[in-house]
Amino acid sequence: MQMAQEKKGERNMEKIVIIGGVAAGATAAAKARRLSADAQITILESGPDISFANCGLPYYIGGDIKNRSKLILQSPESFNDQYQTEVNIYTTATEIDRKNKIVHAVDSRTGEKRSYEYTKLILAQGGRPISPPIPGAGENHVFQLWTLEDMDKIDSYIEEKSPKTAVVVGGGFIGLEMAEALVKRGMKVSVVEMMPHVMSIMEAEIAGFIQQEMLAYGVDIYTNKGVVEVGKNSVTLNDGSIVNADMVLMSIGVRPTLKLAQEAGLAIGEAGGLLVDSMLRTSDKDIFAAGDMVEIEHRVHGKKVRIPLAGPANRQGRIAAENALGGSHEYKGSTGTSIVRVFEAVAGITGLSLKGARAAGINADAVVIHKEHHTSYYPGAEEVTVMVVYERESGIIVGGQTAGYAGADRRLDVIAAAAAAKLTVHDIADMDFAYSPPLGTANDAINMAAYAAENRISGYSPSMTVGEIDKFIEGKEVIWLDVRDMFAFEKGHIIGAANIPLELLLTRINEIPQDKIIMVYDYTGKKGHQALRTLIGAGFKNVYNVSGGFESIIGFTRAVTPINFKVKLPEIEKKKIGEIKEEEKNIASKKQEKKENSNEPLVVDVRTSEEFAEGAYPGAVNIPLDEVESRIAEFGSKDRKIILYCASGGRSGYAEQILKGYGFRNVENGGGISKMMAKSIKEEEKSNEPLIVDVRTRGEFAGGAYPGAVNIPLDEIVSRAEELGAKDRKIILYCASGGRSSYAVQILSKMGFTNLENGGGLMHMMMRKK
Amino acid sequence: MQMAQEKKGERNMEKIVIIGGVAAGATAAAKARRLSADAQITILESGPDISFANCGLPYYIGGDIKNRSKLILQSPESFNDQYQTEVNIYTTATEIDRKNKIVHAVDSRTGEKRSYEYTKLILAQGGRPISPPIPGAGENHVFQLWTLEDMDKIDSYIEEKSPKTAVVVGGGFIGLEMAEALVKRGMKVSVVEMMPHVMSIMEAEIAGFIQQEMLAYGVDIYTNKGVVEVGKNSVTLNDGSIVNADMVLMSIGVRPTLKLAQEAGLAIGEAGGLLVDSMLRTSDKDIFAAGDMVEIEHRVHGKKVRIPLAGPANRQGRIAAENALGGSHEYKGSTGTSIVRVFEAVAGITGLSLKGARAAGINADAVVIHKEHHTSYYPGAEEVTVMVVYERESGIIVGGQTAGYAGADRRLDVIAAAAAAKLTVHDIADMDFAYSPPLGTANDAINMAAYAAENRISGYSPSMTVGEIDKFIEGKEVIWLDVRDMFAFEKGHIIGAANIPLELLLTRINEIPQDKIIMVYDYTGKKGHQALRTLIGAGFKNVYNVSGGFESIIGFTRAVTPINFKVKLPEIEKKKIGEIKEEEKNIASKKQEKKENSNEPLVVDVRTSEEFAEGAYPGAVNIPLDEVESRIAEFGSKDRKIILYCASGGRSGYAEQILKGYGFRNVENGGGISKMMAKSIKEEEKSNEPLIVDVRTRGEFAGGAYPGAVNIPLDEIVSRAEELGAKDRKIILYCASGGRSSYAVQILSKMGFTNLENGGGLMHMMMRKK
Repeated sequence: MQMAQEKKGERNMEKIVIIGGVAAGATAAAKARRLSADAQITILESGPDISFANCGLPYYIGGDIKNRSKLILQSPESFNDQYQTEVNIYTTATEIDRKNKIVHAVDSRTGEKRSYEYTKLILAQGGRPISPPIPGAGENHVFQLWTLEDMDKIDSYIEEKSPKTAVVVGGGFIGLEMAEALVKRGMKVSVVEMMPHVMSIMEAEIAGFIQQEMLAYGVDIYTNKGVVEVGKNSVTLNDGSIVNADMVLMSIGVRPTLKLAQEAGLAIGEAGGLLVDSMLRTSDKDIFAAGDMVEIEHRVHGKKVRIPLAGPANRQGRIAAENALGGSHEYKGSTGTSIVRVFEAVAGITGLSLKGARAAGINADAVVIHKEHHTSYYPGAEEVTVMVVYERESGIIVGGQTAGYAGADRRLDVIAAAAAAKLTVHDIADMDFAYSPPLGTANDAINMAAYAAENRISGYSPSMTVGEIDKFIEGKEVIWLDVRDMFAFEKGHIIGAANIPLELLLTRINEIPQDKIIMVYDYTGKKGHQALRTLIGAGFKNVYNVSGGFESIIGFTRAVTPINFKVKLPEIEKKKIGEIKEEEKNIASKKQEKKENSNEPLVVDVRTSEEFAEGAYPGAVNIPLDEVESRIAEFGSKDRKIILYCASGGRSGYAEQILKGYGFRNVENGGGISKMMAKSIKEEEKSNEPLIVDVRTRGEFAGGAYPGAVNIPLDEIVSRAEELGAKDRKIILYCASGGRSSYAVQILSKMGFTNLENGGGLMHMMMRKK
Repeated sequence: MQMAQEKKGERNMEKIVIIGGVAAGATAAAKARRLSADAQITILESGPDISFANCGLPYYIGGDIKNRSKLILQSPESFNDQYQTEVNIYTTATEIDRKNKIVHAVDSRTGEKRSYEYTKLILAQGGRPISPPIPGAGENHVFQLWTLEDMDKIDSYIEEKSPKTAVVVGGGFIGLEMAEALVKRGMKVSVVEMMPHVMSIMEAEIAGFIQQEMLAYGVDIYTNKGVVEVGKNSVTLNDGSIVNADMVLMSIGVRPTLKLAQEAGLAIGEAGGLLVDSMLRTSDKDIFAAGDMVEIEHRVHGKKVRIPLAGPANRQGRIAAENALGGSHEYKGSTGTSIVRVFEAVAGITGLSLKGARAAGINADAVVIHKEHHTSYYPGAEEVTVMVVYERESGIIVGGQTAGYAGADRRLDVIAAAAAAKLTVHDIADMDFAYSPPLGTANDAINMAAYAAENRISGYSPSMTVGEIDKFIEGKEVIWLDVRDMFAFEKGHIIGAANIPLELLLTRINEIPQDKIIMVYDYTGKKGHQALRTLIGAGFKNVYNVSGGFESIIGFTRAVTPINFKVKLPEIEKKKIGEIKEEEKNIASKKQEKKENSNEPLVVDVRTSEEFAEGAYPGAVNIPLDEVESRIAEFGSKDRKIILYCASGGRSGYAEQILKGYGFRNVENGGGISKMMAKSIKEEEKSNEPLIVDVRTRGEFAGGAYPGAVNIPLDEIVSRAEELGAKDRKIILYCASGGRSSYAVQILSKMGFTNLENGGGLMHMMMRKK
């Protein structure tokens, strides 16, 4: 055995030995050198590389990073050049002799033993991926990804064996990034996750956004499942099913490397990591530690946690070095901010999840909003989801999650700062964030989320997240009220929900029973809030807005199967690697039949061709507002009846002015699409559809009725029977509860009507209306 | 005169009249309706439109927004539909009768007079662009941009007249967005700005980033200039120069619309806006106000300011409505967060600028850093600039500015939150922000900026911003030390700076005089910090790091002309609209001469082809590390002398291992490019270049010398004269101060040498070295 260190110029010189040379270790060494020109600094790294880009490995396999050399940030030599640090690779520390302050180590290539004296020791050994003891897990086609060597092995295997299928075990950060990488290498990929959804640290509806993206790219997801055996070309799950797998990636977690520290008698903490104080000092005053192996205080609730992430590891390495050299830099703890991008979808979390906060004894609530990441009128706007978790009484922000195709990182950072600084939702509600049409909105998604939280806190707009609702409604009778337009409803909705578009809500409010729990939802929660306020204004007491609206319902249901409600989900649009997003493709595909010479009124949809393609009034012609003037000839003669509509009635109002300016005399603004459709239904039903008869009083009817129903109060039914037409016509009768209509059926039956049906109460009618 | 409002169901019903229906007014109306189902809400809007996207107008002119209708957010009709609000357009309020609570108004189309009773009045009249009283400003080719009508006029003018040249007067948000728009319409555009640089609210070096982008797109910028006359096809500036202008856009600022409020006797504040309290109540308890017309508290220093921005206007409108309906929502003030995108460049500001903070009596400092917005190894990384302004003693963040092509908005929002919440640089230093290789770095730019601030505060790394330095060095003797590599130095530097690459600093440290003020700069400030620590470690006392390094020097110098130093700026790369950014274009353009069969050593640059193209060792062959193995044949025979290098010596260390693995016996790691170049210079100078002789002692020489100099101590000069070669050879001699070398010149002259020069002291030599 030899003493590897020279004993030159020893004037109380610090000898810093650092065990581990990647994230925390390399940072500690660099910081130590910047702090002290004459400290002797030695790194002992058991692997072949120091300071490589471990987070970048999946992107090399996936081909986003073309040059392997980009992942090598430093060589032992260049590190020594830059920081005058003795870097020993392939050097495994075997024992810490705390009494004599010596680290014993062995060169794993030669077996040569060496010892390193220290005045201060910094442990930065990180962790190692967990290898599950599954039959077959040791085969050559089973991989993990932790080092450059691991990466090279996977890359070579794919090059040489051209696997067609792959199973990724574990749906965390590395698992999902690798799922993407393997899809990019042309494989059919399946992800197996033991928890109810991938990215299990996130809320289901946030993870659902990621799962949806994975499904769109053809990845199969098996949740609540484990792998029990790895075969040659498949794996067997714990439910007995077989999944094809020419290769398998294991990424079920990382275990801290604690053997050396434990054997040296250093204290291990309650969270299972190496115990350190706020100076990152272990139970030995001369030994500091940083990175994945330690447990630290959570910056929000102060409890001990393990947060094995690159950012905290770097910052801890920096602080450990500072304090090892006599500093007293207090580590404030970590909020565990983390983010993942899977294909184009991004989702992130900071601080505590709602579940995590409640588990920590915090009286927490959460709200979710979805808002465009920049103004919707500027091309390229994408919806960003923001969830804020806060303490119910104080409004103090304890965490948050974001998701989206663009701008999720930005909003996450604001919440990360707010949670770390213990700001309240009131603090951020009126804050000014960066706004310019291509870069934001005048009221940022963060402002909106804070407003939603304020409104939930004050009781002004009671809301619940979808996850909360699924528990809350257990055993309760609930009316789901969908206030979106009928095209949106058609594509997806909660099964059994009544669809009353917001614009029609006031006129149809009597259809909704006051004595039930009403769960209102719209697209994103914003109009749901308006609908809720309308209902409360009309005397409803038991109304909740679904936080995040149908977007959140989709997200939740993509991740997990709701227990207490069922959802018809919209189809997932398939995506392919390398497919260019046709942003403003000309979708004006529907044939526009010109009806200029007809006597029928011309119905003109003045929305954009994209909006028109999503669904339009039957027979309507699409002339976008901007084209009204240039296509004025298409409107025909000046006397012709023209009905204009758009989404809300706004643009059609402008179109009406334009046409009147051109001398058209018979122009009507039909308003928004929902109003038009309501009218359409009424007209259709008058002809071949069954006749729907409301037998309530005129007053009741005026308060809101089934679309297209005619009102013949019960006491007029005999005198107005001729209005019902042929005796064999299908007639459905309803009232408020089904009582009066039952009586009406009896009367009409006696009068010879043969095709009668008691539709029951209005709500019943609404429910069965598809 | 008629009372326009009906008197139905008056049970203490609130009558909210809102004057102004765009940003603050429309928001106030919508919020009022959500708060109160039965309040009577009336908007009086003097123009033809309500709630249009006023911030979007330049993007329609520039063609980014294709559909004009996208800018129309609501029509009076749709707004009424959605919020049951009586919207009166073309209705100009002429008088507020506060005693009787009546607003008198006139229909500007018909001249009809109307009155509107109110219980609460909300003023949201905004402002109007200032029209300067310049001869010719009233001509038809002179425009302003504030309304859809203004936009249409400009658009039609361009369509019909096809102007070739345009002058934009005023380099603020609208001015610059319009400059971009007009370039996109094919014009040669000039911007005239009265202040020293465009975006005058920002720091020069931040605005300089924007100015550089404008220059790249061919926009001419005239700063410190005003327009004194508008001619038919040109404008005349106040220095007499003439600038071509087939059209002119005036955007010199906005004046709040206060006439009505003033005539009603409402108090005007010290900042020239309508005075409101923190409830946004004017001096009349029943009149509230919001938006561009009011002055409000600055959220950082609490002083009254006017911040005419869309975000605050929206939030104020919301709060004014809440309080008008009996609420007590306190407005916390504005930090004035604002951001602009000009072509691809983005720059933003929040809170106070350094100048603004100091003017407000705050003992403020600032630091600047530049860091990649996501990991540099993942494709597409862009540098983002972060400036943080903080109170010197406490570290409380009072403002900040960011700039970049990507990620500037995200970092600005974090600083905006920090400034609003009065967090310190210590609070944000160890915060965890969103990190994943495509979405950030393990230590975010915000962390780095906070570290830099901490290091400036503690005195550990004294630094100054470029703007501060330009004042600080007035009348002082300063040594500029450029620690970048020589290729970077070659492209641009501070004139007179000594170039000692960081890698060589320790060996050449004696070249730098200890008694002078040393200003160190590198690329971004990070290695400058390292260099500064090295100098301080070596006993230097008076050293400052240029905050933000040469990047900041460039930014500053693009914006203004420094007073106390001169800069050789790098060339601006010209850009064209629609040109696709060739991100990873194959730049391996330099011919690589193969020298396999030569006896000379093969010098191999193992960096990427992009790095190689930036500048390389003379005669070196580029074989990137990743290609070393596949191109192994190009290295020739195994005995051949091969010298490898890269940027730092790291990758070449790996390449050395690879080659040795292949059996190459004569491989040398030449280290980083700077070391190689130092060697190169030495070799070149030995041949045809003048011989540089250092006549100091061996010890002095070993501490660092002029690149390529040979050391012949003065007392050996006679005995070693034959080493100097031919008598007519050019020989430059130097020592520490010029004294000993002067004596050496005399000696050699007597010995018959004819081409001698006394180079003086080492620093003098370094200075004259280009």
